[in-house]
Amino acid sequence: MLNQALDYARQHRPGYLEALLEWLRIPSISTLPEHAPDVRRAGAWAVARLQGMGVSSAQLMETGGHPLVYAEWQGAPGPTLLIYGHFDVQPVDPLEAWQGPPFEPRLEGESIYARGASDDKGQAFAVLAALEAYLKTAGRLPLNVKVLLEGEEEITSPNLLPYVQAHARQLSADAILIADQEMLGPQTPLIMYGVRGNLYVEIEVQGPASDLHSGTYGGAVDNPVNVLVRILAGLQDGTTRRVLIPGFHDAVQPLAEEERALLAQAPITDEVARQLTGVPATAGEQGFSLAERVAVRPTLEVHGIAGGFTGAGMKTVIPARASAKVSMRLVPDQEPQAIAALLEAHLKEAMPATVRWGLRVLGTARPAVTDFRAPAVQAAARAYERGIGASPVYMRGGGSLPIVRELIDRLSPPGGAIPVVMIGFGLPDDGTHAPNEKFALASFHQGIDTVIHYLDILGSV
Amino acid sequence: MLNQALDYARQHRPGYLEALLEWLRIPSISTLPEHAPDVRRAGAWAVARLQGMGVSSAQLMETGGHPLVYAEWQGAPGPTLLIYGHFDVQPVDPLEAWQGPPFEPRLEGESIYARGASDDKGQAFAVLAALEAYLKTAGRLPLNVKVLLEGEEEITSPNLLPYVQAHARQLSADAILIADQEMLGPQTPLIMYGVRGNLYVEIEVQGPASDLHSGTYGGAVDNPVNVLVRILAGLQDGTTRRVLIPGFHDAVQPLAEEERALLAQAPITDEVARQLTGVPATAGEQGFSLAERVAVRPTLEVHGIAGGFTGAGMKTVIPARASAKVSMRLVPDQEPQAIAALLEAHLKEAMPATVRWGLRVLGTARPAVTDFRAPAVQAAARAYERGIGASPVYMRGGGSLPIVRELIDRLSPPGGAIPVVMIGFGLPDDGTHAPNEKFALASFHQGIDTVIHYLDILGSV
Repeated sequence: MLNQALDYARQHRPGYLEALLEWLRIPSISTLPEHAPDVRRAGAWAVARLQGMGVSSAQLMETGGHPLVYAEWQGAPGPTLLIYGHFDVQPVDPLEAWQGPPFEPRLEGESIYARGASDDKGQAFAVLAALEAYLKTAGRLPLNVKVLLEGEEEITSPNLLPYVQAHARQLSADAILIADQEMLGPQTPLIMYGVRGNLYVEIEVQGPASDLHSGTYGGAVDNPVNVLVRILAGLQDGTTRRVLIPGFHDAVQPLAEEERALLAQAPITDEVARQLTGVPATAGEQGFSLAERVAVRPTLEVHGIAGGFTGAGMKTVIPARASAKVSMRLVPDQEPQAIAALLEAHLKEAMPATVRWGLRVLGTARPAVTDFRAPAVQAAARAYERGIGASPVYMRGGGSLPIVRELIDRLSPPGGAIPVVMIGFGLPDDGTHAPNEKFALASFHQGIDTVIHYLDILGSV
Repeated sequence: MLNQALDYARQHRPGYLEALLEWLRIPSISTLPEHAPDVRRAGAWAVARLQGMGVSSAQLMETGGHPLVYAEWQGAPGPTLLIYGHFDVQPVDPLEAWQGPPFEPRLEGESIYARGASDDKGQAFAVLAALEAYLKTAGRLPLNVKVLLEGEEEITSPNLLPYVQAHARQLSADAILIADQEMLGPQTPLIMYGVRGNLYVEIEVQGPASDLHSGTYGGAVDNPVNVLVRILAGLQDGTTRRVLIPGFHDAVQPLAEEERALLAQAPITDEVARQLTGVPATAGEQGFSLAERVAVRPTLEVHGIAGGFTGAGMKTVIPARASAKVSMRLVPDQEPQAIAALLEAHLKEAMPATVRWGLRVLGTARPAVTDFRAPAVQAAARAYERGIGASPVYMRGGGSLPIVRELIDRLSPPGGAIPVVMIGFGLPDDGTHAPNEKFALASFHQGIDTVIHYLDILGSV
């Protein structure tokens, strides 16, 4: 059964590729309202694909926002695996930095270039292809499988969480598989045993009723951009890079020596990060290694800032308003809503009486951690060894998958914790969320093979 | 001769208005390259107007940038007055804040609404109208007049300064009149006896080679926006609002008690500024009155800041770069080039080794001060009394007119200083440099009358 599935997958690589390119052509940008029909189309595409391989339960489920895809195959006596992925993608700007149109996938140097190639359509499709390889050969799967693909991952899953709450019984499983990650290198697979949370806010500062001439009013009123940069600068220490919002660190779990030793084995260093990113020197919170900084420590980033005149040339204006998008990656047990309250309290203290201001929470994600010694997690290590030929490194993920914490909270048995197996086949230079996102053909093929092995191994546990 | 000119001007108000509206329809935005032909058209329009009133010497003079207008009438035995103005305008963004198209002037509530209505076409035209009133009635002017109108005032006059240097003999005069200011209120005219200088720079910070995912790299590299806001915040004290660039204040002339007393007479207060601008509370450098802060003290403004994702929704990106446009208003004897060197030295100290950065000087203007007791200045006070019916307040201007210092340096007699008479007819709520700029019809008419009186008074000195 295993070998037939592997053979099928290898023989059908051209067809798999063609199908993936078709999926990538759908510009399913979840954050831009004008692309809502495309997000829906990308979901419908996955439903059709699942039904085509014989999973007749596959359907588009409506939510308060973009729809999601749910499918299940329950013909095995063995355990049940819930598989999660997503079919929405990040925006493409700056568009001028792309070497080709983001939604016209092109093959170049053994990689697929397109928005969503690596995050997450390429990886989600590898899972679908593995299921298809079993169903088209053996006519069955080695274990029961439930598939949940959402269209709002890139906007912190506002409607998936209510869905999980309302459908806990439908989604019940013995383990959860999420293939949405990067490996550390072509021969360094990674098992994630946690994710950071996120609090994404917009801060707006309003000064004068309309733009003013800086000659006439410079020295008379506060400039909203001057105020905003001072506020933003005050959120983080310029030397230690530690977040300065009072109370921000109170709930952070201290790093146990055992875990520090585990993370020290991860072959990621400042020098590796420097080479991957092209920065003159790395940065981050003082007193922590790179592996710790990107995984178990919180951060604060200004994702975008806007205010005043930014065209060519000069304009001597005191702008009426300025705004910034800011997010904080959070670690167990920082709760996004609690951190938002701390931020608001801090802004109330820090904002001068010379401006009006507003704080708006745009999205939240709770941090999560799982037990890396669980059998379902260890099965993934063996699947990597067989699918890729290398043993994995263990780390916590720096990104946010709000669904992880929600699934743990909703689907864990009484007194226990459902294991969440986070693997993936992307590479660090895939440029997820950036221009010229890519997914290597080799990663695509390894992903399919590894998932085929994982289903086999977990089915025999 | 005086009364004939006044009568002519009053009878021809409809025609003057029609002509001004025609000039305002030309979108002569000097900072936007695509509007260069419009700037030239606006200059040619003024040449035609001068020639139409009999000043046959009027011509468009080429420069390295936008052309300027020069004209002279030398038929009087008396003194020579050099009149300066400009026909270029500021950009119009944010366009959506305008209640009508900026270059389709409309009359509403006794005001002309259009970009450039007050700054400076409306005021420059008032001067042309005053000349016309004499030339069309007496056939001559009460004194010799030279007219210099430029098309680069809003971009700190990069080509006017070389022109003045090369044409000092052509421009030689006994006094200089500049009508490009706002009064403090409809019955509170103003005489400016100085202007602030300006140093306008762009600061750019470059981090990673391309945008990064803040989940993967948050904590590993410095975010260029985080770095930039910290740098910008460090340029000014958040409490005292004092510029913190080392050495910045070294050349600032201390404020003499005599001048402090003069400025204390100006009826501008924090409460007036608050009402005019709509801010919750005024701001500015601690230890100085509002009149001092906007006139004799330097300031620092961030005019625009750009970086990262600023569209709707969320994008969790560490942007590759961020930039800001910053200017500093300067006071005697701060030299823009020296301040730029201090800023650069400070940035070298303050920028972290984690980013690459650049500093680009976009424009400079030197500060200037003139003797408010000079007869040519006092003549303006009497002209205001006759043209508007009120005595003026004396202040230094908060804005920058680089030409002032240049004219003083180039045209002053040995051992002396040519007086620069800065008057104007705008009102504080004209919204210069902002959406819905306006010029009151009453200001327009008072301006024409006041300049007619000024020519008469100065011609008899």
